[in-house]
Amino acid sequence: MEKTGKRALGRPATITAPRETILTHAARLFAEKGFEGASLQDVAKAVGISKAAVYHYFPTKQVIYDEIVIDLLSRLREHVQAEIEGTAPFNDRLRQMMVAHASFFEANYESFVTLLHGFGGLSRTLAPGQVSVRDEYETMIRGLMTDASASGELVMADPAIAARAVLSMLNWMARWYRPGGRLAARDFAEEYFQLIYNGLRPR
Amino acid sequence: MEKTGKRALGRPATITAPRETILTHAARLFAEKGFEGASLQDVAKAVGISKAAVYHYFPTKQVIYDEIVIDLLSRLREHVQAEIEGTAPFNDRLRQMMVAHASFFEANYESFVTLLHGFGGLSRTLAPGQVSVRDEYETMIRGLMTDASASGELVMADPAIAARAVLSMLNWMARWYRPGGRLAARDFAEEYFQLIYNGLRPR
Repeated sequence: MEKTGKRALGRPATITAPRETILTHAARLFAEKGFEGASLQDVAKAVGISKAAVYHYFPTKQVIYDEIVIDLLSRLREHVQAEIEGTAPFNDRLRQMMVAHASFFEANYESFVTLLHGFGGLSRTLAPGQVSVRDEYETMIRGLMTDASASGELVMADPAIAARAVLSMLNWMARWYRPGGRLAARDFAEEYFQLIYNGLRPR
Repeated sequence: MEKTGKRALGRPATITAPRETILTHAARLFAEKGFEGASLQDVAKAVGISKAAVYHYFPTKQVIYDEIVIDLLSRLREHVQAEIEGTAPFNDRLRQMMVAHASFFEANYESFVTLLHGFGGLSRTLAPGQVSVRDEYETMIRGLMTDASASGELVMADPAIAARAVLSMLNWMARWYRPGGRLAARDFAEEYFQLIYNGLRPR
């Protein structure tokens, strides 16, 4: 390898698996600083290559972002598919699916944050005043579950987790629900309620 | 009212409830174009006032964003609290809570998108290649639920909605889960599974 100290523009990087390495570092930086906040220069620095070397693999930052998302979703599907293949009965398959998804999420935390927080990344956290209002609401829901658990109306291992499940279903609507369809948001809420309520009734 | 055609900088707008009106239009624009994509000029134009008049009420775009979030969360809590007050037994309270939350979400759709999509707004939709990978995964989960429903292992009104509930709980983790805590992501998945599975078993 030459030691000229000067690298030709766009020359391939001399690191192993450069594409994957660039994606991994970019995902971490997007998660930390958001898409706008992290520059290609930051990515190059984190990988330990020149910005030109990054351009050799990815023409724009947007392409890196899109690549992270595609890569993540494809691997998630393959991972979960492999985990549930051949598993029966159904309850084992559902359990395997949910646990495999969560484990994959944990192992690819930065990429998921990039994908699911949107462009803001973790840098776009709530301001203190916002956090306290949100906490008040969560406390209210948790109180509801704790009361039901204490009175024996519902049976649950951990009221806080049950409350989180309820809020997750409702909050996630902002990602997929579009007004004006056949079912209103409240119709979905009714179905979710049945699901949770039946799941927690004593038997 | 003078008709000079020229407005003093920062002069109060001559519209009713200017703060609320500005917030409403800003929420819609942030939802459509993202925080970066929507300028204060866009907001002013949508409201029908000058940019200086917007500055009279809000010093920066960030302040408007923060105000939307605080306002939204406070009203959500008040709305849901009022709906469940005095309601008993618990199952009615939980149902009321979930439906009230969903209805409030529907009525304040743009603000929720601003809050929960983060800075990207709806403009940051997935690229076509990303959508197809995501759809493949969702189809797999839906297939799992449909099989269980067809075989009678689980009882559900709509397998697609049950699949959505599962994915909502898992996906929402990216918003609140932080690695390194007492429970791993898979521990939460196990609890969620119990909840869903018990909820859907025939009785």
